Amino acid sequence: MIKRNPHFSSLLPNYLFEEIGLRKKAYLERHPEKHLLDLGLGDTTLPLSPVVVRSIQEFAEKMGKKESYKGYGPTSGSVELKRGISERFYAGIVSAEEIFISDGAKCDIGRLQLLFGDDVTVALQDPVYPVYLDGSLLQGVAPQNIFRLPCTPENQFFPDLSLAKGVDVLYFCSPNNPTGAAATHEQLQELVSFAKKEGTLIIFDAAYSCFIQDINLPKSIFEIPGAEEVAIEVNSFSKFAGFTGVRLGWTVVPKELRYPGGESIYQDWIRATDIVFNGPSNLSEAAGKAVLSEEGFKACKEQVATYQKALHEFERLREIPSYTLFAGTNAPYAWIRVEGKSSWDLFDELLNECQIVSVPGAGFGSAGEGFVRLSAFAGVEVVRQACDALLDYASESIIQS
Amino acid sequence: MIKRNPHFSSLLPNYLFEEIGLRKKAYLERHPEKHLLDLGLGDTTLPLSPVVVRSIQEFAEKMGKKESYKGYGPTSGSVELKRGISERFYAGIVSAEEIFISDGAKCDIGRLQLLFGDDVTVALQDPVYPVYLDGSLLQGVAPQNIFRLPCTPENQFFPDLSLAKGVDVLYFCSPNNPTGAAATHEQLQELVSFAKKEGTLIIFDAAYSCFIQDINLPKSIFEIPGAEEVAIEVNSFSKFAGFTGVRLGWTVVPKELRYPGGESIYQDWIRATDIVFNGPSNLSEAAGKAVLSEEGFKACKEQVATYQKALHEFERLREIPSYTLFAGTNAPYAWIRVEGKSSWDLFDELLNECQIVSVPGAGFGSAGEGFVRLSAFAGVEVVRQACDALLDYASESIIQS
Repeated sequence: MIKRNPHFSSLLPNYLFEEIGLRKKAYLERHPEKHLLDLGLGDTTLPLSPVVVRSIQEFAEKMGKKESYKGYGPTSGSVELKRGISERFYAGIVSAEEIFISDGAKCDIGRLQLLFGDDVTVALQDPVYPVYLDGSLLQGVAPQNIFRLPCTPENQFFPDLSLAKGVDVLYFCSPNNPTGAAATHEQLQELVSFAKKEGTLIIFDAAYSCFIQDINLPKSIFEIPGAEEVAIEVNSFSKFAGFTGVRLGWTVVPKELRYPGGESIYQDWIRATDIVFNGPSNLSEAAGKAVLSEEGFKACKEQVATYQKALHEFERLREIPSYTLFAGTNAPYAWIRVEGKSSWDLFDELLNECQIVSVPGAGFGSAGEGFVRLSAFAGVEVVRQACDALLDYASESIIQS
Repeated sequence: MIKRNPHFSSLLPNYLFEEIGLRKKAYLERHPEKHLLDLGLGDTTLPLSPVVVRSIQEFAEKMGKKESYKGYGPTSGSVELKRGISERFYAGIVSAEEIFISDGAKCDIGRLQLLFGDDVTVALQDPVYPVYLDGSLLQGVAPQNIFRLPCTPENQFFPDLSLAKGVDVLYFCSPNNPTGAAATHEQLQELVSFAKKEGTLIIFDAAYSCFIQDINLPKSIFEIPGAEEVAIEVNSFSKFAGFTGVRLGWTVVPKELRYPGGESIYQDWIRATDIVFNGPSNLSEAAGKAVLSEEGFKACKEQVATYQKALHEFERLREIPSYTLFAGTNAPYAWIRVEGKSSWDLFDELLNECQIVSVPGAGFGSAGEGFVRLSAFAGVEVVRQACDALLDYASESIIQS
């Protein structure tokens, strides 16, 4: 029988969210009477807006009629959708032809590995969304060729780029999952200058850009002049429009991007996706088109504002002396450190004592040790209840000690 | 700047359907007054059935309400859908837990490469759907480690397996795209015995199994006892339910499958898909559930029968003395050879003289040279017009010669 892909053995034994699921399940088996406040998985909870629902329904109607039925679409997605994204999200600084519609940012991150092969060096923020690391390892990038760039309160969550000197690929997630830190214009300028100097390709993950409230912060790497020569950007409708289950995202691959031999990365991306992908669902595309309408865009912005309101509740946790709260204005996450506690200890404590599901920061990299991530997606009411429980528990602990 | 994945240079310069598109476009630019009869791309043309449309619409409605909204689903898809597929397509011989719902067979074929890494030997039918070859090359399998198994009228389209002795992975597409040949029970038994003896993993592509009319032919490799120890099967709703644009398929990975070291292939598949995939669209899943209902399944079977009726039209081409027509009963394709003509010559002739778009057999492998594939998806009326045009042209040619 076939040999195992040897790279599976480079992966850590458990995927973060799988482990959380197991601990949740075990807790509920021990305490079937308890109800959990889930501030864990970064999943949306607000419904699709009415215009999106109507658009799906109308498209389904058309798919049921011979004269308006559609089969395969272009692998890179609908031209109308690309144009809409170019206008709505990039004010035209990225052209429609450079936008490739996908079934989500995570899936495209997986496919992007095909551009590089396994003989590359990779740098990534630490802590960060685990998929860049696992995807690189699975593709065969040697563990010793992957460099982690700590992002901590001590460096304002922006890494020391000198640790990434000469790397081939640098993943950069801003606003960052899990820290919530959003890079400034100056920081992204530094990143682009670094990439130009070092011959590095930036994979910029902007999946949380819709949460940026500070109008001075860039929402796309392509707001930085020259980024089109060194960067690819992945993005998604998931968080903006509640499409985590609907599956729709996009990747920007600038036409200017070239390998040192002069070959076009843009052309290779077209070729690679034609082999391993068949385009997003046209039902999801119909949903996406409605998001880009006046009514849809407004409704999605209001939903984001609702999540931001929930996020604001976390501010109350500043009253707990042992807690340090970071970020939480330009991303849907609060990033919390408790002196002297490991991430998984803190996770277990929140679960057992307050029935709160969090995500242990250590699961995102060793620089996340000592932190947990709390999500605002559960909504104002649940976040409020969680904060109440945490404040109660903290005051009890103080009385007892 | 990052090095290019060296494996891009192993790929042939043009993807088959891209080249066909270019020639179609060029023809229409020269002859804007002409209308083409498209028997090329294997795309469905009949609308979604009413129960499928309603299911999408009702699900969209639910997605618009907070209490019934759904975010991320399981990466491997809805349990209800898995159960339905297990019952409808496998009469229970494959369990629901062994079924992984995907966004289509092509996408899963791309992801399956992750199980193997690049240090494998691969065998595939010739001619065959180009994605197995291109996907293997892109993943880094060395061209000299890929073995093509000719399937021609001379061997009744079943390969000489001795050419694949000791290979790690063998792709087998039945009913075959493009030849239309469907393997018999005995042939698949031979394949499974070979795989057990040689330690070969079979990737069985059953995407066209719904077209099998002969009740003695197997629709799944898992109808062969012991296949669960040596085979993975990919399948799709695309052709059965008209979901080419909706995107929904599945892959069966038996729990029994092991690497020689004893590690579970099933567990690795869960891990790999968790890293590079996020599940199919839940809108597509809602559509798929309706396909599995009594009403939906019956409607889809009727659609398949309609395509089969169109396919039957091709029988008229047997009147043309220079044509040899193969298969065309258990797959939506007619596979035609014209003595003394290359595939691309025949393609160009059909396009220029009869305004018919075909697919040159040579694009599926060198053993497809001299053939073209004609598809029945365009429907009875278009196939009839195409056959009229071909018969007219053939009789004119005879008069002229």
